[in-house]
Amino acid sequence: MAIRLDQSEADFEQRFVALLSAKREVSEDVDATVRAILADIRARGDAAVLEYTARFDRLPLTAEKLRVSEAEFEDAALAVEDKTLAALTLARDRIRAHHARQKPVDDRYVDALGVELGSRWTAIEAVGLYVPGGTASYPSSVLMNAVPAKVAGVDRVVMVVPSPDGIINPLVLVAAKLAGVDELYRIGGAQAIGALAYGTKSIPPVYKIVGPGNAYVAAAKRQVFGTVGIDMIAGPSEVLVIADGDNDPDWIAADLLAQAEHDTAAQSILITDDAGFATAVEAAVERQLKTLPRGETAAASWRDYGAVILVASLADAVPLANRIAPEHLEIAVADAGPYLEGVRNAGAIFIGRSTPEVIGDYVGGSNHVLPTARSARFSSGLSVLDFMKRTSLLKTGPEQLRALGPAAITLAEAEGLGAHARSVAIRLNL
Amino acid sequence: MAIRLDQSEADFEQRFVALLSAKREVSEDVDATVRAILADIRARGDAAVLEYTARFDRLPLTAEKLRVSEAEFEDAALAVEDKTLAALTLARDRIRAHHARQKPVDDRYVDALGVELGSRWTAIEAVGLYVPGGTASYPSSVLMNAVPAKVAGVDRVVMVVPSPDGIINPLVLVAAKLAGVDELYRIGGAQAIGALAYGTKSIPPVYKIVGPGNAYVAAAKRQVFGTVGIDMIAGPSEVLVIADGDNDPDWIAADLLAQAEHDTAAQSILITDDAGFATAVEAAVERQLKTLPRGETAAASWRDYGAVILVASLADAVPLANRIAPEHLEIAVADAGPYLEGVRNAGAIFIGRSTPEVIGDYVGGSNHVLPTARSARFSSGLSVLDFMKRTSLLKTGPEQLRALGPAAITLAEAEGLGAHARSVAIRLNL
Repeated sequence: MAIRLDQSEADFEQRFVALLSAKREVSEDVDATVRAILADIRARGDAAVLEYTARFDRLPLTAEKLRVSEAEFEDAALAVEDKTLAALTLARDRIRAHHARQKPVDDRYVDALGVELGSRWTAIEAVGLYVPGGTASYPSSVLMNAVPAKVAGVDRVVMVVPSPDGIINPLVLVAAKLAGVDELYRIGGAQAIGALAYGTKSIPPVYKIVGPGNAYVAAAKRQVFGTVGIDMIAGPSEVLVIADGDNDPDWIAADLLAQAEHDTAAQSILITDDAGFATAVEAAVERQLKTLPRGETAAASWRDYGAVILVASLADAVPLANRIAPEHLEIAVADAGPYLEGVRNAGAIFIGRSTPEVIGDYVGGSNHVLPTARSARFSSGLSVLDFMKRTSLLKTGPEQLRALGPAAITLAEAEGLGAHARSVAIRLNL
Repeated sequence: MAIRLDQSEADFEQRFVALLSAKREVSEDVDATVRAILADIRARGDAAVLEYTARFDRLPLTAEKLRVSEAEFEDAALAVEDKTLAALTLARDRIRAHHARQKPVDDRYVDALGVELGSRWTAIEAVGLYVPGGTASYPSSVLMNAVPAKVAGVDRVVMVVPSPDGIINPLVLVAAKLAGVDELYRIGGAQAIGALAYGTKSIPPVYKIVGPGNAYVAAAKRQVFGTVGIDMIAGPSEVLVIADGDNDPDWIAADLLAQAEHDTAAQSILITDDAGFATAVEAAVERQLKTLPRGETAAASWRDYGAVILVASLADAVPLANRIAPEHLEIAVADAGPYLEGVRNAGAIFIGRSTPEVIGDYVGGSNHVLPTARSARFSSGLSVLDFMKRTSLLKTGPEQLRALGPAAITLAEAEGLGAHARSVAIRLNL
């Protein structure tokens, strides 16, 4: 059973702060192990990759077998049901259409002085995508990471996925093919991150690495940051549902459990102004837990991190939502407009009673890689911009240099930078 | 004297790779020291901030004196020459005008199925700006960091600057005021990063921290990443100049030295197709070094990291530039067009013979906080987007849910996520 908080009670602020600051992840200290693996990959390349893969994934390979072949992609396609393939294709198309709208537009202009300025966007040339193995090997995540990269115009989208005992989920291969992944290697862990960052004889390096992974992968990404770019370090998933008493308690309970089943460290929170409805949702959660395949995980998450918050009026939910800064926010009311306006910190907002967050996980079109652990206060979900970079352009002719140069010289001198001043002055014969 | 490489020689590739991979920074291991300081700030707040400031900056303060007062801002304004104030104001206005064009536009649309989608941008509520003390305390950097934050709409721009022995550069205070900085605290080092990230009684926390600093500041930013957002970790500055033989060697030498004077670890590279011009530039560098206030620094940078690269044709400079991925790129030719098109990896490009990079440092309008150490391959200079975040919006009505729901259920089931499937199915009476 989740905890219950009531904003009208005296200890609410204290309990709410405790909820906000609850650590949901034990951080394993794997830095030293990862550092050694990365150094070894850097020094020995393929040989080290093969050794770690044999040891950790129980998979003896040769350099030639690192890359997944076309024949394997074809076999995987045969192993997937038509219905599933159609659903993946629908998801791919909708993700592509939505993300195409995110492509930034270059800006070139001439200002009143005649100075030419501009911002030019270009795609990153090569990007690595880490996909976890085993049960966390989600084809939907392959689409969510790879499709925006291809929309951005990345030339080489290079995917890695560990294949313990030689097993890869065929759905992951099919999703990779649908998304346009250019190269796929059957490796994982810190050794895969090292291979992507430094390159080996068989695996040319990439410039940025995205995608979720376990503690070793996360530590490796932090350590190669600088050599390559990385995306955010994803934490366990979260949902905040703001709901009035006119919702079906079973619908809302199902939404809370959809997050909770991800991970025992996931978090589901309900804010409502209706105490009776809150009780009905709590009861529905308990009922539904009994028939859930991943009921044990969901029950632990709901028990340890779930929360039901009672407010006097739903308007009071908005400032609380901004403090929680949830990865996912459902606003399950008839008219979400007034609440929507006030929410500033949320990764994604799902509007109205008929938009379960799960639609956004798969086929809505927007990205399901979203900021966790309150980081929606300062960061955004994955987008096409994460696969591009901006170069600024500046051109002054002799006339513009005469207009702006003296101020630049003044500032350079004020900062004690004589060569800065000279590089302008020498062009003005000063 | 810088090294000379010639693309026509047999060992060119090997020497070019060595140039690319030269480590220009000794990374100090200050992680443990920083970890202890951060933990102490978190535990004891103001008291710890005051203690470290007394110890490291030799500045005994009380909590009430941490914040710079209005009277101090007024005194600083009186200490600054009119000419300098005018130059700073010009820079502020031009930076503001350029960055205003970067403000992203929200996107709301309804697709063919009737699904409502959108991306909504909002400013980060509170941002911290670290400004180094002493000789690296540049008023231009205050403008380059704070103006985009205010253009983005950040409510609280909180600046920290260490004040060793009580001394703050009045230009920094004036720049902070011009840029619209909301709060300024006279603290620095890891303790200032801790105060910004965790907050103290006197210093409310921020959600993101930007700005350059020494090894302690950089380590502290890495450690608080997650609790708050951070910008990139800036390395020593770099310029690549592509120049034909029709340039004045003294102009190009001055540009190379303008980078070199920043830091002994800065890097200046010239690529030209004219061996005689290369020699003339090398001679001009030696000549100019003799009369440079920061000549010793510039000489060390040029000697240790400078390079002159000869190519058969300037077109060959473009792929080399993309591999170098310089922070600053000057294209000093009569018609830069053909080269400009081919450059993909550069923080900022300065076009033509009359656009010294220094104009971009101060009054061009574009940002001078740019990706260093080859990171222009995967990242961009500072912009308004760094102070905003995007929330995605999704709304399906009952009809859209009927259209998309079955595919979502199929994918949820394929991924083994039963509660995900249920949260859609329950709304469709499936």
